[in-house]
Amino acid sequence: MIEGMSDLDLTADVVTLTRALVDLPSESGQEGPLADAVERALRRLPHLAVDRVGNSVIARTRLGRAERALVAGHLDTVPAAGNLPSRLVDGRVHGLGACDMKGGVAVALRLAATVPEPVRDVTYVFYECEEVEGERNGLGRIAAARPGLLEEAGLAILMEPSDAGVEAGCQGILTADIVVKGTRAHTARAWQGSNAAHKAGHVLARLDAHVPERVLIDGLEYREGLSAVAVRAGVAGNVVPDECVVTVDCRFAPSRSAEEAEVYVRGLFPEYEVRVTEVVGGALPHLDRIGSLRTALGAEPRAKLGWTDVARFAALGVPALNYGPGDPSLAHTAGEYVPVAHLRRCEARLRAWLR
Amino acid sequence: MIEGMSDLDLTADVVTLTRALVDLPSESGQEGPLADAVERALRRLPHLAVDRVGNSVIARTRLGRAERALVAGHLDTVPAAGNLPSRLVDGRVHGLGACDMKGGVAVALRLAATVPEPVRDVTYVFYECEEVEGERNGLGRIAAARPGLLEEAGLAILMEPSDAGVEAGCQGILTADIVVKGTRAHTARAWQGSNAAHKAGHVLARLDAHVPERVLIDGLEYREGLSAVAVRAGVAGNVVPDECVVTVDCRFAPSRSAEEAEVYVRGLFPEYEVRVTEVVGGALPHLDRIGSLRTALGAEPRAKLGWTDVARFAALGVPALNYGPGDPSLAHTAGEYVPVAHLRRCEARLRAWLR
Repeated sequence: MIEGMSDLDLTADVVTLTRALVDLPSESGQEGPLADAVERALRRLPHLAVDRVGNSVIARTRLGRAERALVAGHLDTVPAAGNLPSRLVDGRVHGLGACDMKGGVAVALRLAATVPEPVRDVTYVFYECEEVEGERNGLGRIAAARPGLLEEAGLAILMEPSDAGVEAGCQGILTADIVVKGTRAHTARAWQGSNAAHKAGHVLARLDAHVPERVLIDGLEYREGLSAVAVRAGVAGNVVPDECVVTVDCRFAPSRSAEEAEVYVRGLFPEYEVRVTEVVGGALPHLDRIGSLRTALGAEPRAKLGWTDVARFAALGVPALNYGPGDPSLAHTAGEYVPVAHLRRCEARLRAWLR
Repeated sequence: MIEGMSDLDLTADVVTLTRALVDLPSESGQEGPLADAVERALRRLPHLAVDRVGNSVIARTRLGRAERALVAGHLDTVPAAGNLPSRLVDGRVHGLGACDMKGGVAVALRLAATVPEPVRDVTYVFYECEEVEGERNGLGRIAAARPGLLEEAGLAILMEPSDAGVEAGCQGILTADIVVKGTRAHTARAWQGSNAAHKAGHVLARLDAHVPERVLIDGLEYREGLSAVAVRAGVAGNVVPDECVVTVDCRFAPSRSAEEAEVYVRGLFPEYEVRVTEVVGGALPHLDRIGSLRTALGAEPRAKLGWTDVARFAALGVPALNYGPGDPSLAHTAGEYVPVAHLRRCEARLRAWLR
């Protein structure tokens, strides 16, 4: 590798920097070259103390301020989908990761480089493996390798695309298999068996009739959801199936703990076997603890309905919110882009809060 | 191939002959060596006119009798399952195809060889590819290649395993996909979509509540069935599925035509797309037309609930029944066997009817 080729110029305009980040591919597990470039660029800045854990890079001001904020963005992207290199068209930067979330990373890198004396200390975290299974997540690796490093912040800003608005907290996720059992038989003598698929109709009809709750927290509505995302039954074309598995995805408000969510879902299907395959709690919005930031960002907070790494910060005791450029519904699409206006607005508002 | 090695001795005992047939493998599509052996053995018999179509062999007496009966058995088997060579244990011949239906073929070959002057003319048909897709079926090939050959019989006996009892007619089969449509959405905003799996719950619950009819024909009960045999839905773990397909298998009494069965099933699900993937009519029992045979076989006819090639004869205008050694529920199992007592009873009773 020719080192100069992947050097990042953090004094460049945020649009130029976003495009440079997009053009340095970093699919999950392959963040090494991008992490190297980020680390090199940050180590050149005398006002930052730089640390590295795996392919995650942490840079901190050490001004002895009364408060410390954390600004985090993940370096990885989903696999490319014919959307490289970057393109700037009609005020939008197109390309792999532009929205999720190299635009947000560019904003954070600009702030790290150009606000040497923020009014509150800042910990910048650029981390790996957000788009893959949770055990590989860079935040988890940092928390394990450097206990206290993340927790010392009083507030975390996660640069998740949120239309340059504030999305507070996040909902929890539970996935479970509801297993309906029957007895096999030849379909020519179906009455000798018990059709698990027929019985699963009652599970699905119950889901259809279910009205998820709308939970108000700090004035934000966390609208829950309970969806069958898969149904599987079938042995052979002439066999009454003896098992039908309905996989459900439950999104629950952060006022429920993971344990409470599990009790809740099991309670909806008391007569069936419910195998919980994953459950992760959400994050409360903590609007009371983000006062000055909320004012600076000038956006009315909304509830975050998807699950994000703000829940990891919540689990560490650090209130967090999602604030980043880009439309979250474009994440992971081949056509993802980030509006230049979002990049500039996010950079300007966070800069104002730090100065 | 050493010809002598696969020669069949049709004067041997029916048990010996059954074992010889089992030990000459003939998975569907590979019936050539067995068909060769059958053809050679039958051509040695001066009282039979032998014909061949593909790997099917037809042998006819030409005595100018007032009646002609047809005795048919298929030569092919499903693939081996560690159940070769044949074994004779405790009065049962074990091995691939012993039950379905080399035992029946042995009975028919014994009759062909040892009843040179039957009181009614007989057409023996040993055919290929019964265990695979219908277009390859040897009976269909014979009907196409030799028009009138099968139709000249007034009655057909199909040597399907039927516990050495008479199973009259057969039910029809219809398979269809019931397609339930919805609209995709992210599960974090499930209310923006329409969950096809949830809606399919009403299809499955309707199947669960459905009471199939019991149709009496000639005093025999053809109990119908309507079973979901597969359910498929699922796009991704966080996506509300936009389609759920319920595959149903309908077994209908032979009093309904294929067209009527289709109207019936569509009428049960008028609000959904119903894609009929296969429909084949059954065969009426025609007990009035099998009088002397019924008496000779000495067994009270039962309704045949599975679909068999008697329906092909019915479609050609030839009343047919299932009568053969072996338990039909053992067909296609690795442990299939045929009781020696069944072999002897079937041979003796058919011999009595022909003499």
